[in-house]
Amino acid sequence: MAHQTILEFATSGRGTRDITAAVAKFVAEVVHASGLECGLVQVFVQHTSCSLTITENADPDVRRDLETILERLAPDGDPAYRHDDEGPDDMAAHARSVLLDTGLTVPFGGGRLLLGTWQGIYLWEHRTAPHRRKVVVTVIG
Amino acid sequence: MAHQTILEFATSGRGTRDITAAVAKFVAEVVHASGLECGLVQVFVQHTSCSLTITENADPDVRRDLETILERLAPDGDPAYRHDDEGPDDMAAHARSVLLDTGLTVPFGGGRLLLGTWQGIYLWEHRTAPHRRKVVVTVIG
Amino acid sequence: MAHQTILEFATSGRGTRDITAAVAKFVAEVVHASGLECGLVQVFVQHTSCSLTITENADPDVRRDLETILERLAPDGDPAYRHDDEGPDDMAAHARSVLLDTGLTVPFGGGRLLLGTWQGIYLWEHRTAPHRRKVVVTVIG
Repeated sequence: MAHQTILEFATSGRGTRDITAAVAKFVAEVVHASGLECGLVQVFVQHTSCSLTITENADPDVRRDLETILERLAPDGDPAYRHDDEGPDDMAAHARSVLLDTGLTVPFGGGRLLLGTWQGIYLWEHRTAPHRRKVVVTVIG
Repeated sequence: MAHQTILEFATSGRGTRDITAAVAKFVAEVVHASGLECGLVQVFVQHTSCSLTITENADPDVRRDLETILERLAPDGDPAYRHDDEGPDDMAAHARSVLLDTGLTVPFGGGRLLLGTWQGIYLWEHRTAPHRRKVVVTVIG
Repeated sequence: MAHQTILEFATSGRGTRDITAAVAKFVAEVVHASGLECGLVQVFVQHTSCSLTITENADPDVRRDLETILERLAPDGDPAYRHDDEGPDDMAAHARSVLLDTGLTVPFGGGRLLLGTWQGIYLWEHRTAPHRRKVVVTVIG
């Protein structure tokens, strides 16, 4: 049987936000209530201009460098873009969403997420303005 | 218990095709037959030269701009490629398949896909010639 | 009910290693023990400097060309990187991990992985030095 919730996060514009603890909390609640020993948790963002990603959780320079790389791969305000209704970051945000992930699946076992020591789950806002973002979390075991 | 089907789509060469309705239809059939309240549906393409992606479903210019960006990241006919047995789009198609996704997972609840308003599921053909593509759809709840 | 194991692989530095047979073997064991007819297997690497990917399994030039493309998208030793504690391949490895996949889900049915004929599952080491890598494999049906 699956267990599901929708979490909502306020972003403060472009950048990453660590949502590992919020995901781990829901998994712990489901494990406590259901007795599930192992399974999968899937997180899914209901938007096309932000992403979910798993990356290094220790040195914030890693996430800064990732922004630098994305700005090269999908730059803001590229004159080649036809879609720019909402400004120079509009199409860049859609492209980054496609290059990264809308959904992520993480295994759990022994009652906890089986992330490596240095892995964190991040909500990555690609728009320059703050947004409210909905993340569907589904646990299956 | 999992429920599974294989869908087949004809593509008309490079470009995106919206397969959201076909995926939603199989989920609705499974929900109707099984009474599942929530869970996950996974779509998986059995090929290495096309992709599945979730992106903006309103303005077709978004998908055109995504092609423009991919052509920069993995250009056709790059002289650096060693693998070109099937023409200038051969290796470019494999690279785009790796940069995007072979499989996607989407949550469902209340009997319907929990996509955001502006999200569509697309089969993205990367070869220039038309192909028939098989997509495995698996529902778990 | 989910079934889970952790596999460990030694890599010989940057490059791909085919892990399809190891994943298929665990799925076959679970199917044999449980009688599951179909479902999903998820593979997840507990590291932020290597990836999992599905790509063409016939011509090794495809994987060589993929390295060439990644070296352009996330080059080693880029002067723009702030994070370089472990050498010129450190940040490049994190970036490649984010552009590719930390986790992959593959459907199975009729007792076997539903991969296409030309699809293989690869562990992709992005660091230049050999490493030991842990892969969590979870089967759900």
